[in-house]
Amino acid sequence: MARIAVIHGPNLNMLGKREPGIYGDMDFERMNDAISHKGRELGHIVQIHQSNHEGKLVDIIQGLAGEVDLIVINPGAYTHTSVAIRDALLAAGTPVIEAHISNIHSREPFRRKSFISDIAVGVITGFGVESYMLALHAASAVCGGGK
Amino acid sequence: MARIAVIHGPNLNMLGKREPGIYGDMDFERMNDAISHKGRELGHIVQIHQSNHEGKLVDIIQGLAGEVDLIVINPGAYTHTSVAIRDALLAAGTPVIEAHISNIHSREPFRRKSFISDIAVGVITGFGVESYMLALHAASAVCGGGK
Amino acid sequence: MARIAVIHGPNLNMLGKREPGIYGDMDFERMNDAISHKGRELGHIVQIHQSNHEGKLVDIIQGLAGEVDLIVINPGAYTHTSVAIRDALLAAGTPVIEAHISNIHSREPFRRKSFISDIAVGVITGFGVESYMLALHAASAVCGGGK
Amino acid sequence: MARIAVIHGPNLNMLGKREPGIYGDMDFERMNDAISHKGRELGHIVQIHQSNHEGKLVDIIQGLAGEVDLIVINPGAYTHTSVAIRDALLAAGTPVIEAHISNIHSREPFRRKSFISDIAVGVITGFGVESYMLALHAASAVCGGGK
Amino acid sequence: MARIAVIHGPNLNMLGKREPGIYGDMDFERMNDAISHKGRELGHIVQIHQSNHEGKLVDIIQGLAGEVDLIVINPGAYTHTSVAIRDALLAAGTPVIEAHISNIHSREPFRRKSFISDIAVGVITGFGVESYMLALHAASAVCGGGK
Amino acid sequence: MARIAVIHGPNLNMLGKREPGIYGDMDFERMNDAISHKGRELGHIVQIHQSNHEGKLVDIIQGLAGEVDLIVINPGAYTHTSVAIRDALLAAGTPVIEAHISNIHSREPFRRKSFISDIAVGVITGFGVESYMLALHAASAVCGGGK
Amino acid sequence: MARIAVIHGPNLNMLGKREPGIYGDMDFERMNDAISHKGRELGHIVQIHQSNHEGKLVDIIQGLAGEVDLIVINPGAYTHTSVAIRDALLAAGTPVIEAHISNIHSREPFRRKSFISDIAVGVITGFGVESYMLALHAASAVCGGGK
Amino acid sequence: MARIAVIHGPNLNMLGKREPGIYGDMDFERMNDAISHKGRELGHIVQIHQSNHEGKLVDIIQGLAGEVDLIVINPGAYTHTSVAIRDALLAAGTPVIEAHISNIHSREPFRRKSFISDIAVGVITGFGVESYMLALHAASAVCGGGK
Amino acid sequence: MARIAVIHGPNLNMLGKREPGIYGDMDFERMNDAISHKGRELGHIVQIHQSNHEGKLVDIIQGLAGEVDLIVINPGAYTHTSVAIRDALLAAGTPVIEAHISNIHSREPFRRKSFISDIAVGVITGFGVESYMLALHAASAVCGGGK
Amino acid sequence: MARIAVIHGPNLNMLGKREPGIYGDMDFERMNDAISHKGRELGHIVQIHQSNHEGKLVDIIQGLAGEVDLIVINPGAYTHTSVAIRDALLAAGTPVIEAHISNIHSREPFRRKSFISDIAVGVITGFGVESYMLALHAASAVCGGGK
Amino acid sequence: MARIAVIHGPNLNMLGKREPGIYGDMDFERMNDAISHKGRELGHIVQIHQSNHEGKLVDIIQGLAGEVDLIVINPGAYTHTSVAIRDALLAAGTPVIEAHISNIHSREPFRRKSFISDIAVGVITGFGVESYMLALHAASAVCGGGK
Amino acid sequence: MARIAVIHGPNLNMLGKREPGIYGDMDFERMNDAISHKGRELGHIVQIHQSNHEGKLVDIIQGLAGEVDLIVINPGAYTHTSVAIRDALLAAGTPVIEAHISNIHSREPFRRKSFISDIAVGVITGFGVESYMLALHAASAVCGGGK
Repeated sequence: MARIAVIHGPNLNMLGKREPGIYGDMDFERMNDAISHKGRELGHIVQIHQSNHEGKLVDIIQGLAGEVDLIVINPGAYTHTSVAIRDALLAAGTPVIEAHISNIHSREPFRRKSFISDIAVGVITGFGVESYMLALHAASAVCGGGK
Repeated sequence: MARIAVIHGPNLNMLGKREPGIYGDMDFERMNDAISHKGRELGHIVQIHQSNHEGKLVDIIQGLAGEVDLIVINPGAYTHTSVAIRDALLAAGTPVIEAHISNIHSREPFRRKSFISDIAVGVITGFGVESYMLALHAASAVCGGGK
Repeated sequence: MARIAVIHGPNLNMLGKREPGIYGDMDFERMNDAISHKGRELGHIVQIHQSNHEGKLVDIIQGLAGEVDLIVINPGAYTHTSVAIRDALLAAGTPVIEAHISNIHSREPFRRKSFISDIAVGVITGFGVESYMLALHAASAVCGGGK
Repeated sequence: MARIAVIHGPNLNMLGKREPGIYGDMDFERMNDAISHKGRELGHIVQIHQSNHEGKLVDIIQGLAGEVDLIVINPGAYTHTSVAIRDALLAAGTPVIEAHISNIHSREPFRRKSFISDIAVGVITGFGVESYMLALHAASAVCGGGK
Repeated sequence: MARIAVIHGPNLNMLGKREPGIYGDMDFERMNDAISHKGRELGHIVQIHQSNHEGKLVDIIQGLAGEVDLIVINPGAYTHTSVAIRDALLAAGTPVIEAHISNIHSREPFRRKSFISDIAVGVITGFGVESYMLALHAASAVCGGGK
Repeated sequence: MARIAVIHGPNLNMLGKREPGIYGDMDFERMNDAISHKGRELGHIVQIHQSNHEGKLVDIIQGLAGEVDLIVINPGAYTHTSVAIRDALLAAGTPVIEAHISNIHSREPFRRKSFISDIAVGVITGFGVESYMLALHAASAVCGGGK
Repeated sequence: MARIAVIHGPNLNMLGKREPGIYGDMDFERMNDAISHKGRELGHIVQIHQSNHEGKLVDIIQGLAGEVDLIVINPGAYTHTSVAIRDALLAAGTPVIEAHISNIHSREPFRRKSFISDIAVGVITGFGVESYMLALHAASAVCGGGK
Repeated sequence: MARIAVIHGPNLNMLGKREPGIYGDMDFERMNDAISHKGRELGHIVQIHQSNHEGKLVDIIQGLAGEVDLIVINPGAYTHTSVAIRDALLAAGTPVIEAHISNIHSREPFRRKSFISDIAVGVITGFGVESYMLALHAASAVCGGGK
Repeated sequence: MARIAVIHGPNLNMLGKREPGIYGDMDFERMNDAISHKGRELGHIVQIHQSNHEGKLVDIIQGLAGEVDLIVINPGAYTHTSVAIRDALLAAGTPVIEAHISNIHSREPFRRKSFISDIAVGVITGFGVESYMLALHAASAVCGGGK
Repeated sequence: MARIAVIHGPNLNMLGKREPGIYGDMDFERMNDAISHKGRELGHIVQIHQSNHEGKLVDIIQGLAGEVDLIVINPGAYTHTSVAIRDALLAAGTPVIEAHISNIHSREPFRRKSFISDIAVGVITGFGVESYMLALHAASAVCGGGK
Repeated sequence: MARIAVIHGPNLNMLGKREPGIYGDMDFERMNDAISHKGRELGHIVQIHQSNHEGKLVDIIQGLAGEVDLIVINPGAYTHTSVAIRDALLAAGTPVIEAHISNIHSREPFRRKSFISDIAVGVITGFGVESYMLALHAASAVCGGGK
Repeated sequence: MARIAVIHGPNLNMLGKREPGIYGDMDFERMNDAISHKGRELGHIVQIHQSNHEGKLVDIIQGLAGEVDLIVINPGAYTHTSVAIRDALLAAGTPVIEAHISNIHSREPFRRKSFISDIAVGVITGFGVESYMLALHAASAVCGGGK
């Protein structure tokens, strides 16, 4: 049984309302329900966070040090610009899985650069809301937890 | 009659106190009065926001979706670094006019890159406080509102 | 009352006939009428020039030195390639406003580079024919002329 | 029930014998058994291919057009150098999932470039042999097949 | 029967007098005779233009809109520097074939960049005066005209 | 009468089945028939080769040294990545014409680089299957053969 | 006697808990005590701030304008990404000393770029917690205050 | 006795009226008188040309082939942008000396690139109007003419 | 006594027939005889391989793991393009010496990049066929074998 | 008590005579007196060297191996160009502090690159002559010597 | 009457013995005689220096401060690599003319970069030994000395 | 019998004392003895030089012109920064072999650039002290001397 924090970065709270051609039409609450459900199914204890604020995300990550076994993070736009979140993850010392709803490799060139990928265990990108579910599956393998 | 949000990014609240050689000596309150006045003159309903916080600006923009017909934004320093504001504007789905007080093309090279320009209707830069007034004029043309 | 020269660069004479998806369908003569009308409305004396020839545009600008108070220029394709026009504007010593019909930031990458922007007072781009009208408004602010 | 081809690129046949610090110590046959087993568990029909030859991989992919519903490919070293495999996948017209055993973002800089990612549905990287299992899970979501 | 304009850019009028090691020793008049002859042989109506002036070439192309079915252009040195000619060709809305006498890929690096190639139907380069003849053959295929 | 080898690179055997929006809908066999027919019409002896394997293409080219007067090659994806084919062509010492079905200048940026163009006599790109026919015409001029 | 603000950027509050191989094992409170003590020893009035929020740091700096004689700032991760903090420091108009605990020149390449260094009086990097003490010594020289 | 053409590029006719801080205050006519006088003094036959038009400069250079022994050219702004003038000079086949009034190395970065320098015999830059006089001296050495 | 594999990449089988100005005129068989002879003279057991196929070279290298003490490889054109061969050499875990007949530093710029050099013990380039002999000498030092 | 060598690179002997706007007006002898005095005050044994010769600086550093506990070096212009001094410092195996009088980050771009910073313990830049005094303070912390 | 130092950088003492195709066949002594003679003819007092040592050249330049009115320097290879000589020239505060025997713009790309040009009054390059004579002429204009 | 100069650049005199992990533990004198011994064994007349001074190395090379048949040079750090040594070697007109003790391709990126390699006959890198012995072997092949 692994303790997992799922962290959503900026604008993910707009899911379902935002560019459905790119992000799909499932809304944010239903996605989080699905994540919680999948977490329980896999035997994980899952907590979920979201913020539009880079600093708040840093605060959240700092607070997770020692409290969780693994962080699944979709840093959204901060993927491409935030060294502060990278540093917070390094400071937390917890394994990290980076997940993205859209395929960041087929969008604007600046989305191809990630400040998180090289410090993550692994990266899952492009499967819509399913990316989070795959991350929870992966978490089982990484932590040896879940079933 | 168009509903317009004018959003000022970081440090614009320092106007009049900050590098007058670049930004002029009109102060922030008087500039906002002038914007409100010009908005009324052109028949727009104008609301004005300012924050030094990237995340707060994202929050504000998210809250404007469906509430306004057009956003005039001077993202200040975040023009050059914020993918999160770009994504919030895309998520809001509202036409955007980018405005700058100074001429960003004649300053440091890093100010020449904007994460907003290519998703805006248009850009107005370099006319001091007048840039906002021109943006309100432009808003009339974009929205077919105003007089 | 300001004396203003409006200069159109190459292919702008094709307006209305050229890529209407990008440039709109107002034709060149009607646009110039609208510019003249707006100039009179704002109390300016406006003269209008167009050439497809870089050298001719240089000749025109040289001839304007001391004759006008401000130049509004849409250098068209020469925006991105002409040092000669930049030098002519510097030699003329007259304040310059750069205007573009389309949003040059959302087109081919080579259109993002301008040899004029950093020597202009300001830049207005993306508002269609309205960009010129905004430039005339801006001219009032720059010159203290007009009404 | 989806028909899925799993394609391994060059040197993956050396698994278990090759740099275990990077690739782990499970060997190639056992990994393929695990993939087959997971495929059956998820209700897919899985076929597995491997070649060290770029041209042979192109041949294989051409032969899959119309025969499978989805391709899971770990192009190995050819990820970074092969336009031919990209073109074969485009020609096949089948949805593609790109998978990597190691985290290509934390290795040599040249491994960060992929000729496949932008034409794939999604990418899974860094979870060891588990990356393939996650890809099979993802395949269920992409194809609506499996259980 | 297709109406075709062949446009020669700067310095092509020096053919035969100019660097024969690169451009061959056929002179400009004889080349134009050969082009006319080949055009007639293929059933095309061919008109030929040359200018050393970028602006004049823009004027010529503007005048061809609606008058010809296809433009064969060797923009010479302007290939590498002229956005204005690119824009004129886009404005004309006529299919374009780009032709070069010398192989621009085996000369100075700056000759490898073309502002025309990506908006042309196709490009023929390196066959000497024969490049124009091939362009006329290609024109038959593009227009379905000629014989 | 010239002896000419026409060499097709990877995925060209998929012609007609592959991205018809880019490559057209004529299939591979019919294209080769058309090439053979055009060759005979022009008085050439034409042999045709295709492989998806870079190494096989090198083998083929090595075998052509002294056996043909000219090579027409469409290296497909290997255009952009293969130094080995370049070296084989240099080793063969035979004049080379590079041909492409699609216009490589209007596609992904990595297709703009060719390892072959600067060692070819000339390049023909963008005319669909007609590119090969033009190459055969060009071959007559290069070899002084054909009619 | 100089009034000095010491500002710590994101994740510095994790000191002692975070990557001790890079940042040492002194914790944040003890470091601040040492800074205060050294400040008193040198005759300065020292105030200390920390935030993980870029916007909050901007707020703090704006509030310091006219209140302090010098700012010692370790912008942490924002060193490399924040134009907003740069602009706030410029707006404050106070001399700035940039300090870093680790040697940013021997870490990831993106840490070599600073948006602050060129507007600072000077930079001190790599001496662990001692970097702040050196900055206070330097402040004496810059302000002519202290002893 | 050498026959020498001195060619002035765009905006040089504004000399004395244009940015005197950079170009000095001697006017164009007096400079040409000085050039003629110096030419006679050195025993050369000097003709002088100026145009703001790139194409006209190409025309002029073409007309000089065989008529002069050496060209002294200050291509002004076209130095940095004109391949056409480079090609005309190559076509003329006459030795070329490139001269500049200002020191192009201490101005905007784009002025450091010259399309002429590598095909010139030599370059003289930065000595004001004297640059032309030095070029005439140099011409004596190059041509073995003058005294 | 060391067991050594000498591997020749693409086009080296053309030696003596290929660009003798660059590669010399000794043919492939005689070079291999000389290598065998030198190997015996130095007390090594030498096996020799050549292929034009990247995949075949990968196969060969995989088969050498544990069978030889050292690999001398001239990857030919694949030096500059093959990550697969690099990975095969890393997988084999055998010391590698990279050898080249020509001096790759004085040829086309793309030949200056090697995917092998940084994982090799050392590199010998430019001494013609003698490069292999020097590599065998070096092998003695690396393996402590030979005499 | 630490043994410290202070090494001044080229042109620092011109201090006080050289660009006082950048380097201040204290002269070289008085600066060295101040350094010696500060060293004694902090309980260090300080030796001082200066040379304009890169090779001489290498000689000096080689001679210091084992003789001093720490090197404070202001490599002057060689900061940006000398790998030899970097290698000498690495060979000496002594901790290094890099110091600069001016703020190298606010000068020409080429001064931003240092061949020394990444192998130094730390860097102090921009505090005028005080940079050396701060380096001596830092030395106490690095060596645990001084008081 | 101006006091002028002529400084030759490394390898210029080999003149006449070194690559005569590039540097001509006049030897070093005769060139210096010619320089002295030309200096006297123009009414200058000329001293001549040469060294292969960057540091020695710095020493020489430092010694010239206040002793000469102008420095003519051909920094040879150090043109492209020496910040130290640049700094020495800045420290000396004397006007500088940069001269080169060969045309550095038509040689290897690294010779196009000069650390001296932007701080010189002007640059003369490509006229062989005559470049120095032209520099002496230019010196008269710069200093108002000579006749 | 060939006359050979072996030249060691900066810091090679520290061999055995310097970073033994990179350079090995044989000291400088013993290495030179081994070089001399190997030279005699191969029938060469060998002279050995070392200097830390770029200018001294230039002096040495100039003095070797005509005195030796071949230069073996390990320019050490100057490999990457010295155009002066390149020019001296070109001036000497003697064949050059470049040798390095360490494998410069697997160290810092700036060590991958050599100003010598493209003008050398060949390069040997990475074999420790044995690199020199291999260079002497290579010298025999280059000069046809030795045995």
